[in-house]
Amino acid sequence: MKENVRKIILDCDPGHDDAVAIIMAAKHPMIDLLGITIVAGNQTLEKTTRNGLNVVQKLGLDVPVYAGCGIPMVRDRQIIADDIHGETGLDGPVFDPLTREAEKEHAVDFIIRTLMESDGDVTLVPTGPLTNIAMAMRREPRIVDKIQEIVLMGGAYQLGNVTPAGEFNIVADAEAAYVVFNSGRPVVMMGLDLTRQALCYPEIVERMRSIGNPASELFADLMTFFGKTQKAVFGWEGGPLHDPTCIAYLINPDCIEVKDMYTEVEIRSERCYGRTLCDYFGITGKEPNSKVAVKLDKEGFWNTVEECLKLYN
Amino acid sequence: MKENVRKIILDCDPGHDDAVAIIMAAKHPMIDLLGITIVAGNQTLEKTTRNGLNVVQKLGLDVPVYAGCGIPMVRDRQIIADDIHGETGLDGPVFDPLTREAEKEHAVDFIIRTLMESDGDVTLVPTGPLTNIAMAMRREPRIVDKIQEIVLMGGAYQLGNVTPAGEFNIVADAEAAYVVFNSGRPVVMMGLDLTRQALCYPEIVERMRSIGNPASELFADLMTFFGKTQKAVFGWEGGPLHDPTCIAYLINPDCIEVKDMYTEVEIRSERCYGRTLCDYFGITGKEPNSKVAVKLDKEGFWNTVEECLKLYN
Amino acid sequence: MKENVRKIILDCDPGHDDAVAIIMAAKHPMIDLLGITIVAGNQTLEKTTRNGLNVVQKLGLDVPVYAGCGIPMVRDRQIIADDIHGETGLDGPVFDPLTREAEKEHAVDFIIRTLMESDGDVTLVPTGPLTNIAMAMRREPRIVDKIQEIVLMGGAYQLGNVTPAGEFNIVADAEAAYVVFNSGRPVVMMGLDLTRQALCYPEIVERMRSIGNPASELFADLMTFFGKTQKAVFGWEGGPLHDPTCIAYLINPDCIEVKDMYTEVEIRSERCYGRTLCDYFGITGKEPNSKVAVKLDKEGFWNTVEECLKLYN
Amino acid sequence: MKENVRKIILDCDPGHDDAVAIIMAAKHPMIDLLGITIVAGNQTLEKTTRNGLNVVQKLGLDVPVYAGCGIPMVRDRQIIADDIHGETGLDGPVFDPLTREAEKEHAVDFIIRTLMESDGDVTLVPTGPLTNIAMAMRREPRIVDKIQEIVLMGGAYQLGNVTPAGEFNIVADAEAAYVVFNSGRPVVMMGLDLTRQALCYPEIVERMRSIGNPASELFADLMTFFGKTQKAVFGWEGGPLHDPTCIAYLINPDCIEVKDMYTEVEIRSERCYGRTLCDYFGITGKEPNSKVAVKLDKEGFWNTVEECLKLYN
Repeated sequence: MKENVRKIILDCDPGHDDAVAIIMAAKHPMIDLLGITIVAGNQTLEKTTRNGLNVVQKLGLDVPVYAGCGIPMVRDRQIIADDIHGETGLDGPVFDPLTREAEKEHAVDFIIRTLMESDGDVTLVPTGPLTNIAMAMRREPRIVDKIQEIVLMGGAYQLGNVTPAGEFNIVADAEAAYVVFNSGRPVVMMGLDLTRQALCYPEIVERMRSIGNPASELFADLMTFFGKTQKAVFGWEGGPLHDPTCIAYLINPDCIEVKDMYTEVEIRSERCYGRTLCDYFGITGKEPNSKVAVKLDKEGFWNTVEECLKLYN
Repeated sequence: MKENVRKIILDCDPGHDDAVAIIMAAKHPMIDLLGITIVAGNQTLEKTTRNGLNVVQKLGLDVPVYAGCGIPMVRDRQIIADDIHGETGLDGPVFDPLTREAEKEHAVDFIIRTLMESDGDVTLVPTGPLTNIAMAMRREPRIVDKIQEIVLMGGAYQLGNVTPAGEFNIVADAEAAYVVFNSGRPVVMMGLDLTRQALCYPEIVERMRSIGNPASELFADLMTFFGKTQKAVFGWEGGPLHDPTCIAYLINPDCIEVKDMYTEVEIRSERCYGRTLCDYFGITGKEPNSKVAVKLDKEGFWNTVEECLKLYN
Repeated sequence: MKENVRKIILDCDPGHDDAVAIIMAAKHPMIDLLGITIVAGNQTLEKTTRNGLNVVQKLGLDVPVYAGCGIPMVRDRQIIADDIHGETGLDGPVFDPLTREAEKEHAVDFIIRTLMESDGDVTLVPTGPLTNIAMAMRREPRIVDKIQEIVLMGGAYQLGNVTPAGEFNIVADAEAAYVVFNSGRPVVMMGLDLTRQALCYPEIVERMRSIGNPASELFADLMTFFGKTQKAVFGWEGGPLHDPTCIAYLINPDCIEVKDMYTEVEIRSERCYGRTLCDYFGITGKEPNSKVAVKLDKEGFWNTVEECLKLYN
Repeated sequence: MKENVRKIILDCDPGHDDAVAIIMAAKHPMIDLLGITIVAGNQTLEKTTRNGLNVVQKLGLDVPVYAGCGIPMVRDRQIIADDIHGETGLDGPVFDPLTREAEKEHAVDFIIRTLMESDGDVTLVPTGPLTNIAMAMRREPRIVDKIQEIVLMGGAYQLGNVTPAGEFNIVADAEAAYVVFNSGRPVVMMGLDLTRQALCYPEIVERMRSIGNPASELFADLMTFFGKTQKAVFGWEGGPLHDPTCIAYLINPDCIEVKDMYTEVEIRSERCYGRTLCDYFGITGKEPNSKVAVKLDKEGFWNTVEECLKLYN
């Protein structure tokens, strides 16, 4: 149904799981992908932009790609995740020489322009550090009320992954995350608590590969590499499909259980920098400002992934 | 076997679950309970001391009780847990008029004296805020090397209970916890991650009550009240038997799985004050300074509790 | 001499002393005022923009005015200084109905464009919160190397003015200040330590008024109001001419003694938020990243102010 | 007059200026020196205790000396000031072999006992880190109301000396300082803002030496060494006589101007750890909890020092 189509901007730092999010979002009839905006994160801006373009070129996707911010809002030491995503940020698949180019417009300007011209029906889907989104909010505060919803991958209310307290996307630019969570707009948070339930085991890789189209093949190549680094770093037999959970939530919200919580981002502590303080038990008495994902219906989730990949047949 | 007998000082703030820890520790042949030291926590020092004395009087236990510190080491606002433990700190059971008295010696002096006179074979078992222990360590630094092990209840690497980040015992005096975790002595941490696996459901209360002795009756009265407040605050059908997990670990270590982790206590942040930053995945590369409990063998645990209660037959 | 002419962008939040800085910078032959960029600070962006336009209109100045950021980069509670600058932000003088308009270009874009098109000979002179400057640095990191120097008013190594630790401009957006001080470009800091030596006593107001031109009259009207609020808040007989010290330094550097220091901005503490930690004694051993003003040659300074005002004859 | 005699406990970490404070306090008729309690600070506890004993032995003072705490309350990295006070902590003078011994009682116990037995007429004079005082307050909270006044050397509202923000005594144990300033008892703070007005120039050293008694000779030997290290570290021609200002204030309060301020100690920030946030301008609106020294009447001060030294004739 037309009224169920969600207009989204996918703001990402590809990255293996970001690439899968692009694949899933680009063709699904319930999603109108207005643009892909790129931010530094899993790798430098130059590399994440290149990776995003490689994905859209390889699958022939007709969606504009905008390069955005290359360094965090405030912190001066940039972190990348080359231990997880490799030297290029998208190690594993082989891509043809790149001919696709990013748009001239800066990602932050595209986000501002799109929102200001909208009827308040655009959802932001950030799956990397929140630099682009927060910079847009600070540059043009009037966009905030125009955002329908923010469905993001980031944070954790249990264990972090780059520090005991913090998850990569938030730690990479906690001040930006602070701005986004405090913006007053509804945030849906797909944190590690959820995405660690989406481990892509070898049998799932094979199930998807067997679909037998370019998207499923790319998925399998990506996940094969990703699984190896996750095993090396965290000891798991499969890589958590972090970012695609945002797209799955938009297509099939029933597969992800969320809980209303008040969430704050810690920006004042050295040790806990980037901690997402999700008030799971309602201890603080503060009004919830976020829906935090707590439980994945694995079958529903992998079916949704499969459904998206099959659209490339 | 004699060589398995653990000499311990139980440092507690009774408190329902502390009371159960006393019951369990006092009569078990593998534990030599040298003394009970009391600290403010679940209620004021006056009340927790009274509660400790009430328990030893009711069960006729031959163990000295020492009152200790009434306010936290540094923070100036004291917190208590009257929402959980009631006005007296041990609401529920009815006690006879109190005739037992605390020793004249201050708990901190008793801890120092006992350790200095020992052969390094005394284990500290703190189940409340760590004020007494840290004050002793700072007053007489030479005790540190004399401590065999510190088996404590406190902290969480997942969700806190008094703030999103923090557990009551640590938040009540995070500076004291910082001192203890940084002392260089091995710490075994029974955090909420474990104790939330030890929910004392009504059927367990009945199982224990049916043992039919004064200890089992006291246990059941305590847990009946405790279950009600836990349900009101956290929505659970049973109260987590936090503190007794320390005693169970000493008696039957097989029932509690622990994992070596480096743990830091956050004392610099307002929002994350008292967070125990347990490096579950070894991300920081720092040498583990603690064994953190991760998994409870419920059957083994409840059997151990039952075994302890039966010693009062 | 031509080679002594400094191209500057004056980034300000008028504000009484900002207005004087505009007056001084606009006509002096050693300064080429490329544009005035406005930021929220002493009052809201709407009001500070209006105030800037009022000043240029009243004195017929041929300089473009650009509106910039209206809220701080990260902190969510905006502070203004209406106790000092009044309801409009420029209470005191009477202005004709406003016909001058701000440029269409955003201040941040103007800053980026001007620097990118320059030969590295443009000096930034921020006299308000550093939001515009930091947002430009983060939006387009390549501008950083293009900045000749940053001569700013803000901070204190002794006493703050809005908190015991902090000065208004820095506290209003400490994250922005953090970005600027850490940018790697040379910063000259006119802090309260200096500007409190520039108290504009009634006799100075009269000396300037007696020059008898529109600029000197505006100066006198501004300082008369400003002196009253400073007396009410700090008990001084004259208002500190904070922002004009930056312009005086550019015209007549001999009137301001500066000292090389390493300066950090505190953004992690609630109480010390916005403290400029100037390493006066070289205790930290860190390489100086700033020249911090320590001593004002009062006679030289007021002569420079007078010289600037006389240019309106 | 008898009623003007102040009973004091001098809690110190000798240290050159501490030694002078002992000399001044020990014989003045307006001061009844109940005991000297020693804390780690300028050097380790072992050395500061030895230094205190050396001073009392050399001058034949009849005052008991108590050793106290050797490590800070919470922070785990101890700092000493060997760059200022040398290897022994009291380099310079030559002492005979030490025969005097410290009392058996722990300094903290002495402080508690003395206060509890008093009529509320004992003043604490801490001139080192505040560990002993805070430990006593936490061990026995009832002493707090028994303290007449706390006249301490520490802190700064302008520039620090061990970090840009912090002064040695406070930074050495900021948590202890936090406890003391928040105790509710009146604190008189002799900070660096004052003591840097008490530079002991060579001509003053000579003036005192010329008194020609053992105390004046010891003073001169101490200050000769002290002046050299101060010059090396801070570039000054004389050493600031920090600790003796406390004693001068008790004897001749007119020589030190104090101002009522609300003072907080920063314990949550890494960079500003130990900052004394003195609300000089009353910005916070909080009730003053301290009298902070702002101005030294140098003539009055040096006369008081001379007066004290002459008592050894």
